[in-house]
Amino acid sequence: MSVSESVEVTGHLMDSGILSRILDDIREYDGDYVIDQFDVGHEASDTSRAAITVSAEDDESLQRLLMRLQTKGVNQVDPGEASVSVADLDGVFPDGFYSTTNLATRVRIGGKWLTVDNPEMDCGLVVDGERVYTLPMSDVKVGMQVVTGASGIKVTVPVVERGGDSFGFMESDVSSEKPQAVLVRQVADGMREAKAAGKKVLWVGGPGVVHTGAAPAMVAMVDAGFVDVLFAGNALATHDIESSLYGTSLGVDLAHGRGVEHGHEHHIRALNTIRKQGSIKAAVDNGVLTGGIMHALVKHEKRFVLVGSVRDDGPLPDVHTDVIVGQRAMRAELTDVGFCLMVATMLHSVATGNILPASIPLVCVDINPATVTKLADRGSSQAKGIVTDVGLFLEQLAHELVPAYRR
Amino acid sequence: MSVSESVEVTGHLMDSGILSRILDDIREYDGDYVIDQFDVGHEASDTSRAAITVSAEDDESLQRLLMRLQTKGVNQVDPGEASVSVADLDGVFPDGFYSTTNLATRVRIGGKWLTVDNPEMDCGLVVDGERVYTLPMSDVKVGMQVVTGASGIKVTVPVVERGGDSFGFMESDVSSEKPQAVLVRQVADGMREAKAAGKKVLWVGGPGVVHTGAAPAMVAMVDAGFVDVLFAGNALATHDIESSLYGTSLGVDLAHGRGVEHGHEHHIRALNTIRKQGSIKAAVDNGVLTGGIMHALVKHEKRFVLVGSVRDDGPLPDVHTDVIVGQRAMRAELTDVGFCLMVATMLHSVATGNILPASIPLVCVDINPATVTKLADRGSSQAKGIVTDVGLFLEQLAHELVPAYRR
Amino acid sequence: MSVSESVEVTGHLMDSGILSRILDDIREYDGDYVIDQFDVGHEASDTSRAAITVSAEDDESLQRLLMRLQTKGVNQVDPGEASVSVADLDGVFPDGFYSTTNLATRVRIGGKWLTVDNPEMDCGLVVDGERVYTLPMSDVKVGMQVVTGASGIKVTVPVVERGGDSFGFMESDVSSEKPQAVLVRQVADGMREAKAAGKKVLWVGGPGVVHTGAAPAMVAMVDAGFVDVLFAGNALATHDIESSLYGTSLGVDLAHGRGVEHGHEHHIRALNTIRKQGSIKAAVDNGVLTGGIMHALVKHEKRFVLVGSVRDDGPLPDVHTDVIVGQRAMRAELTDVGFCLMVATMLHSVATGNILPASIPLVCVDINPATVTKLADRGSSQAKGIVTDVGLFLEQLAHELVPAYRR
Amino acid sequence: MSVSESVEVTGHLMDSGILSRILDDIREYDGDYVIDQFDVGHEASDTSRAAITVSAEDDESLQRLLMRLQTKGVNQVDPGEASVSVADLDGVFPDGFYSTTNLATRVRIGGKWLTVDNPEMDCGLVVDGERVYTLPMSDVKVGMQVVTGASGIKVTVPVVERGGDSFGFMESDVSSEKPQAVLVRQVADGMREAKAAGKKVLWVGGPGVVHTGAAPAMVAMVDAGFVDVLFAGNALATHDIESSLYGTSLGVDLAHGRGVEHGHEHHIRALNTIRKQGSIKAAVDNGVLTGGIMHALVKHEKRFVLVGSVRDDGPLPDVHTDVIVGQRAMRAELTDVGFCLMVATMLHSVATGNILPASIPLVCVDINPATVTKLADRGSSQAKGIVTDVGLFLEQLAHELVPAYRR
Repeated sequence: MSVSESVEVTGHLMDSGILSRILDDIREYDGDYVIDQFDVGHEASDTSRAAITVSAEDDESLQRLLMRLQTKGVNQVDPGEASVSVADLDGVFPDGFYSTTNLATRVRIGGKWLTVDNPEMDCGLVVDGERVYTLPMSDVKVGMQVVTGASGIKVTVPVVERGGDSFGFMESDVSSEKPQAVLVRQVADGMREAKAAGKKVLWVGGPGVVHTGAAPAMVAMVDAGFVDVLFAGNALATHDIESSLYGTSLGVDLAHGRGVEHGHEHHIRALNTIRKQGSIKAAVDNGVLTGGIMHALVKHEKRFVLVGSVRDDGPLPDVHTDVIVGQRAMRAELTDVGFCLMVATMLHSVATGNILPASIPLVCVDINPATVTKLADRGSSQAKGIVTDVGLFLEQLAHELVPAYRR
Repeated sequence: MSVSESVEVTGHLMDSGILSRILDDIREYDGDYVIDQFDVGHEASDTSRAAITVSAEDDESLQRLLMRLQTKGVNQVDPGEASVSVADLDGVFPDGFYSTTNLATRVRIGGKWLTVDNPEMDCGLVVDGERVYTLPMSDVKVGMQVVTGASGIKVTVPVVERGGDSFGFMESDVSSEKPQAVLVRQVADGMREAKAAGKKVLWVGGPGVVHTGAAPAMVAMVDAGFVDVLFAGNALATHDIESSLYGTSLGVDLAHGRGVEHGHEHHIRALNTIRKQGSIKAAVDNGVLTGGIMHALVKHEKRFVLVGSVRDDGPLPDVHTDVIVGQRAMRAELTDVGFCLMVATMLHSVATGNILPASIPLVCVDINPATVTKLADRGSSQAKGIVTDVGLFLEQLAHELVPAYRR
Repeated sequence: MSVSESVEVTGHLMDSGILSRILDDIREYDGDYVIDQFDVGHEASDTSRAAITVSAEDDESLQRLLMRLQTKGVNQVDPGEASVSVADLDGVFPDGFYSTTNLATRVRIGGKWLTVDNPEMDCGLVVDGERVYTLPMSDVKVGMQVVTGASGIKVTVPVVERGGDSFGFMESDVSSEKPQAVLVRQVADGMREAKAAGKKVLWVGGPGVVHTGAAPAMVAMVDAGFVDVLFAGNALATHDIESSLYGTSLGVDLAHGRGVEHGHEHHIRALNTIRKQGSIKAAVDNGVLTGGIMHALVKHEKRFVLVGSVRDDGPLPDVHTDVIVGQRAMRAELTDVGFCLMVATMLHSVATGNILPASIPLVCVDINPATVTKLADRGSSQAKGIVTDVGLFLEQLAHELVPAYRR
Repeated sequence: MSVSESVEVTGHLMDSGILSRILDDIREYDGDYVIDQFDVGHEASDTSRAAITVSAEDDESLQRLLMRLQTKGVNQVDPGEASVSVADLDGVFPDGFYSTTNLATRVRIGGKWLTVDNPEMDCGLVVDGERVYTLPMSDVKVGMQVVTGASGIKVTVPVVERGGDSFGFMESDVSSEKPQAVLVRQVADGMREAKAAGKKVLWVGGPGVVHTGAAPAMVAMVDAGFVDVLFAGNALATHDIESSLYGTSLGVDLAHGRGVEHGHEHHIRALNTIRKQGSIKAAVDNGVLTGGIMHALVKHEKRFVLVGSVRDDGPLPDVHTDVIVGQRAMRAELTDVGFCLMVATMLHSVATGNILPASIPLVCVDINPATVTKLADRGSSQAKGIVTDVGLFLEQLAHELVPAYRR
């Protein structure tokens, strides 16, 4: 191990298990370490601080290990100045580019610590005078100044308060055996707090919202102002519209709870109907679409971003068929989001997790434990998971949030 | 194919898919068939009748095929008289014994059609003068007269009304994407109908009832008279009692929704406490146990049968540690049951499905689709499955059934 | 019910359960029926024929019901001539357009029965002189002649041979409890038969192929000529390339079987490396990419279509970021496909199922039963499902197909 | 917090996450703590030692917290002498009894440290002169001396070597996305090591072993000496026997891979056949049973313990119908077990996990992630989980262990 660097990390290191994950990372990257100092919090409420010397085989390996450790909030003791290289190809970062985390980040350029705009993971950092911002790989242009290596960068992990935290419920593993009614109340509290602070509530939803019969509950929450932005795919919107136009949803007769095997004909005809109108808004304005979730969003002038996928029929005219364009449209809606609820979709939940800063509270609800697990594995470690029935969950959530919704 | 027999079946043969399953069975048993006559219902509401000649290699194969077909309601056109053999070993049926279905069954003995007491699948039929009853293999005694072969036996499939049927919701496959609120209402209706008809409501439950925080909802339904009998294992009762004594349940702090990894110490101490009292009832009478599901059952003098399993700690003094004795105790409670709800347990659901007549409406609720599927695969074809969160489901069911439970 | 039509259907109506599904459809569309004639196959090997009069409230409902029934192979007794309307908007079908099935289809125009090119479900039928072809909604242009209503159209269901069929293994429900070794052999047989007939084998894969350590097995099958075309997303290709470049795959150290939590840094750097080369082929040609699945496909000049999704990082330069463009690229590869294997991806499996004719044998392998179920629910009823571990399955399949692969 | 105690713990405290779990436990039991000293291992290979003062509201709470912490290997710095009380009821421990862990345990009685026989969790400790042994609650008799409180007790956590450990593969979470072939090799290595050390290999199996077609592979491993003891229920043995007698297994025709819906008649008849013989061994000796897993075990004079459950038909004459008697029979087979493999059964896996000392390597294989998770949640923290297809896994394992088994 020929090269090394002194790093430090502060926080509830032991009781959050973070230190063991840091040491795991070092091993995984074939590095080594010596713990130089460990100031342990004596009382349960104190924070700890560890100073560690990490070493690696060569400088490139070391730089990459340091980037990796930053995803856990580990900073260099003496970070120095950031290095910058110029991009010489569109859509390609310079070699050794700094790969971002979703944590609050500062960069030292010319002796000054600059705060990075819109933290997002797996991006590069572009320096433009005294501004530094994250940029996805596909958007980089020739001539941009891009940070390389791990020097001159500091990240800050959001502080999670023990006990007083509304979202402390998922400190342990994902499980379907949790007292669900308590969780419903905690999600409602999170939304109310965000609204009280003047923030937006972002929903990310899959077609299961419609299939499980939860559309009326969601409409009630749109009406009551608890849905500011919706990220979804073609499926949620189409099934919602199909349900409004024909009273069915890809195989479920909602009034009688009986399943239809396929129902593709309703589905494809609903798509054609909206395409003929030119947009969902036009369909609402022309009186063609008179109910459901998309209608409620249009009526209240709420935002929605629909991004397509390879399995889409149609799609609806509002759907971004280019996924990179769709990602940009999603990023543009993140300003002032103060709470995010993901319901019944793995694809759009992971996509949203990729672009959300770690500072935004995030709850993921799905009947499939794998969805929540996958979200956490991708790095959205702030995600809280609830494994439950989406239909009953949204029904209960509407009961909590909208007094008038109770029967 | 040297031997054959004429059989017939009547019902909504085509629209229920039953005929295709009958023909599948014949193939699976290496038999062959000719359809002699097929009187199709012209109108959608008419029933059909098929007359089929089935053939097999030898008489033993044919008899076994005929028994198999009876599970689908297929009877011999000319059933003749039942054959009877005498058991010559305790706990062993004579060779070629008739293996029962859970359908209403009649047996012709001495020219008379006798109705079988308590239909139950996978049993033998014992003839005692003019009485014929099902008996499990382990209970047969030397000298008993046991029906052999498939002759002289007629079964009747319960008629499922289309449209008007409260439990029509699961005609299609098991799925988590169903409008759950409608299903809650349908289960509530089924229970109310049973009670209105003077019948008992049987619950079968696993510890998930307690873990998901649904105990208060279930207590409300016990108080309101919607739980007449409970079948469960050591786990549900112990976790319920642990929760009452210590406010925890194998790893879940119900008040805060936080998980405890194990909590075995509470668990084992709760068991010791009740064992010291001698029984759950004694613990209630002595003021040791003052809340929870088991307390409510004792208070209202409702019945419960707890049967042990190999993974049990303790167990509670009320638990039948011999599973065959436990099965007998369960059978003894089936009289007048008019509705059965199974919640969050595969083991006890399958056990109960094994002994329930097909005529009793049966709903199985679990977050795991495999539980419902396995129940149906074992032959409880009358089972309706709901894949949902148990905690929210019982919460909603209590809202439906117990007006005072609503907040 | 003011309007009606005589329809007929031929096949193993009873033993395949198809008739009961047809009658279900009629009820679901609020139609009614009278069975006019039912010629039952007397012997087990005979086919049956049913003549049914279906009725609906008005002509529009009737036409839609008739389209629906065609997905089951039901044709009008007297189909008459097809009606045609002209599209007056780009990307929008005329009202009442005929929504296609994935069955072999003929259309009567001017008294002549024309065979439809490339059957695909959920499309429209465009008439161009004596040619009729399927066209997805998004590709329709002003002025095209589009078939409307259900008249003048006949479909043919592929004949599934009982017993002799290699793919008879999944006649019953999706289940993880199947003798898996037999299934491996059957899939191998299906591929060999397709190759022997001069047909192509299409693979559809998700990143689980790489995560489960099956890349070497798949490379062996590419080398041996059993992979002609691959449909996948950015993830499979990126993880395969990341694995070749760095020996890891999104959190799995393949040599030691230990999990890495995230590993995003390897992932994003692999993407940048290939983007810098300009294409996967360029990376192979320049000696940058020297192993793995994508390398093997390039080396053997096999085809692959990568279509993006909203959660993609990068993406790789070869990825179609516009999903509609991607769908077109997939359609262009379907000629001469004689067998399709889908492995570890719900998204791309459903997408491929949407565009494949029903006549192509199709097997879907996933550890998650929901993937297979969802595929069947979407109408790909020819799909055979195997619920098993993808890594071990591909390992065993390579043992079957490639003698040299055995250790 | 009026009472407190000084405790200590030694090991890879940080990189195993154990310290954070200890502090979680203290909070869960409403205790508090001060970390008095923390000697951190400087190099990656060093162990750490923490000295902590824990406090609780009263002595009873403190004693229970100390017992809880012992499950994590935390001992009192000054443990003093053990307290002992006399049981005054059969089957009931004295109040405040010490609840055991599955760790190696010593007890100080009369100034001497005595080593506890057969560590097992959730038991009491009985003192008999200079012998101390674990005893389950149901076996305690009036007059026995039982340890109470947490004083005078020390536990030792098994040392897990990093890197060199064969079973290091599941340090991260349960997942189906693992390179399975590596895992197969590691399990084979574990079995070979146990056999080389003169230890027994214990298998715990469910009926899925038979359903997935893995019986021939398991027979090969019995023949080759890799199965010394089998713990199972009535189902595995019955389906194995049914398969030998009739070539079927509860709905699966193994030769053709086609599913049978139910097949109960084969099942019940197989049970009757063996009951008539009196035992499985008698059936083998009399030439009635000539193949399958149970036959192989009898032939090689290997041990098996079958314990019944409430859902059993029959059961087989060898089945313990009393579960407490069955647990005792299982305990009696644990001597010299050096490796344990659990396959396709949650019930018997948890039951075995309850009675196994923590020192025995334990691998659990199931296609359902919940089985592995539940095992770990119950306290069998030494359990390594593999989420994969049981049939293909056992096939591959037989390939590894039995050269002659390869085709």
